Amino acid sequence: MPTPASLESFHAVIPAGGAGTRLWPLSRSGRPKFLLDLDDSGRSLLQQTWDRLNALIPAERIHVVTGTAHADAIREQLPELTGLLVEPSPRDSMPAIGLAAAVIEADHPGAVIGSFAADHVIDDQAAFGAAIEQAVAVALAGRVATIGIAPTGPSTAFGYIESGEPLPVDGAGSARAVTSFVEKPDAATAAAYLASGRYSWNGGMFVTRTDVLLDHLARLQPGLHAGLTRIAAAWTTDGRADVLEQTWPTLTKIAIDHAIAEPVSLEGGMAVVPGTFSWDDVGDFAALQDVGAASSADAIWVDADGLAISQDDTPIAVVGLHDVIVVRTPDALLVVARDHAQQVKEVVAELKRRRRDDLV
Amino acid sequence: MPTPASLESFHAVIPAGGAGTRLWPLSRSGRPKFLLDLDDSGRSLLQQTWDRLNALIPAERIHVVTGTAHADAIREQLPELTGLLVEPSPRDSMPAIGLAAAVIEADHPGAVIGSFAADHVIDDQAAFGAAIEQAVAVALAGRVATIGIAPTGPSTAFGYIESGEPLPVDGAGSARAVTSFVEKPDAATAAAYLASGRYSWNGGMFVTRTDVLLDHLARLQPGLHAGLTRIAAAWTTDGRADVLEQTWPTLTKIAIDHAIAEPVSLEGGMAVVPGTFSWDDVGDFAALQDVGAASSADAIWVDADGLAISQDDTPIAVVGLHDVIVVRTPDALLVVARDHAQQVKEVVAELKRRRRDDLV
Repeated sequence: MPTPASLESFHAVIPAGGAGTRLWPLSRSGRPKFLLDLDDSGRSLLQQTWDRLNALIPAERIHVVTGTAHADAIREQLPELTGLLVEPSPRDSMPAIGLAAAVIEADHPGAVIGSFAADHVIDDQAAFGAAIEQAVAVALAGRVATIGIAPTGPSTAFGYIESGEPLPVDGAGSARAVTSFVEKPDAATAAAYLASGRYSWNGGMFVTRTDVLLDHLARLQPGLHAGLTRIAAAWTTDGRADVLEQTWPTLTKIAIDHAIAEPVSLEGGMAVVPGTFSWDDVGDFAALQDVGAASSADAIWVDADGLAISQDDTPIAVVGLHDVIVVRTPDALLVVARDHAQQVKEVVAELKRRRRDDLV
Repeated sequence: MPTPASLESFHAVIPAGGAGTRLWPLSRSGRPKFLLDLDDSGRSLLQQTWDRLNALIPAERIHVVTGTAHADAIREQLPELTGLLVEPSPRDSMPAIGLAAAVIEADHPGAVIGSFAADHVIDDQAAFGAAIEQAVAVALAGRVATIGIAPTGPSTAFGYIESGEPLPVDGAGSARAVTSFVEKPDAATAAAYLASGRYSWNGGMFVTRTDVLLDHLARLQPGLHAGLTRIAAAWTTDGRADVLEQTWPTLTKIAIDHAIAEPVSLEGGMAVVPGTFSWDDVGDFAALQDVGAASSADAIWVDADGLAISQDDTPIAVVGLHDVIVVRTPDALLVVARDHAQQVKEVVAELKRRRRDDLV
């Protein structure tokens, strides 16, 4: 697929981190969620993210930022990847995306970057591409854009974006100013959000000119900006490793939501464009079931229903339980009521307390 | 422990058959319930049955009747066993016990035999022994005795024995005539039985003089009696195998309850003595939990409780489910709501339909 003219300056950044503890025992610290084919598509979530972006732009404009632990696995899953940025240690999403922005800005001044989580599921490539084109148009005009996912229900599992006045931007007819970002609401608040028509789900996708992002950073997080600038200057030199080693651990550990999106939205500098594709962050096993994960063919249900995943191909029989999710791996077993799917992270916490690091 | 004088003529017969499909995947056709240590006692149910009887009488007076498939496993579990009778094929409990009776009668005319299931759990050896002594006294006086388990609640999982008038028998002060045997009742009937004080649980234990049993058989099941007599006559000769092979398949397939206990009770020939020990036939996983099976130490319960058995020592985590039983074996997995424990047999039926004979 040829790159649309509007995406000529567009680069994608995929921060690939986070174990996904609520998907234990499928996801582990050494085998995180983004490396897994969770929806039986034949491609890992990272590979699907890659495919989605590579349908819009060439491989050399897709960058992945990850930790040392997963660099090899990512190279293996993405053989066409040339832009792998390896962090010495995890310092949340702002240093990761900021590093990519600074490195890309050095080679391509005024480029537009979009950051996309490595472990989300999105359906409808055409709608995704259309949203990106609008977001890039907004970014080229100087704002930081985000994509607001059209809610399909009053979910309490996601953050929300409140949209304000329409913005006059060529090529982004649906763009609106962002009034605020709000954290996961309770059920009543979520229902009110949905009824108002002004709220969309926050899928964590941010699109911005690199120089705009770095200017915001210089103003809002000057220490972080200085560190990233120092690292980017050394990036193509022999000094990269030394500078990374000295500087990276000093960078402020902060998410891009808190470092940029929230403060810039309060200043009127954020815009939202609508994403009408279906999207899910596959945050827990209930979400995994919703995105279409299938039970193993050997499963037997007697007066029962749910999802049964058997990694070692042994049959799973469930009797007299509804909405239950069973996940068997060679080394562990989880049985969880669908409506308690979020509490799976407590199992991982308990395993850590018991010093079963071999299992988390 | 010396044999009490009252048990001088007493022999025990243990029919060891039945897979226990409601305890799948722990029990299998090739690894039946009676060979398993289900209550974590360190001894299989068969070994516990042996121990209970061997505390009363010497090993050479304990006989086990089983099929060819399990003969070797039984010899291994019971190295002191000398009286193993191997059936060419399963023909239910009456041919099994009748064969033992005929073989014992040939060597010990007028002996008393008691038959005891190989896969029940009994607590309180002293009370068990006391019940046997009364039952043997009743049997010596010419009746067929059974032991009525004092009910601890209105169970619908067991058959019941209705007792009638007291019987004057020396050494069996608590003996009463049996009015009737009744099948597993519904809950209301079970409650009425309990309230009446006249009903006890049928633990399937029968104690009788061998000549009395064989006389009843000759009258009630003449074909079966003739076949057993033919086999017993050849038992200590070179012709045993031939006669067994020819005759065994012709024997009526019938349980001792229907062949003897029910018709003889209607004639007034059955007596019941009380068993005040705790007893369970461990018929399903709910019963297994009740007899004290413990969850594996690695199990993790988050807002959950029940029983988690992990045969391959992998940890089992349960989240948001109560009264759930999880059983993991190397080749299968069962998750069952405690109050649906009886339906586990439907899983085994489904596996047979799917031709997974490797798993049943």
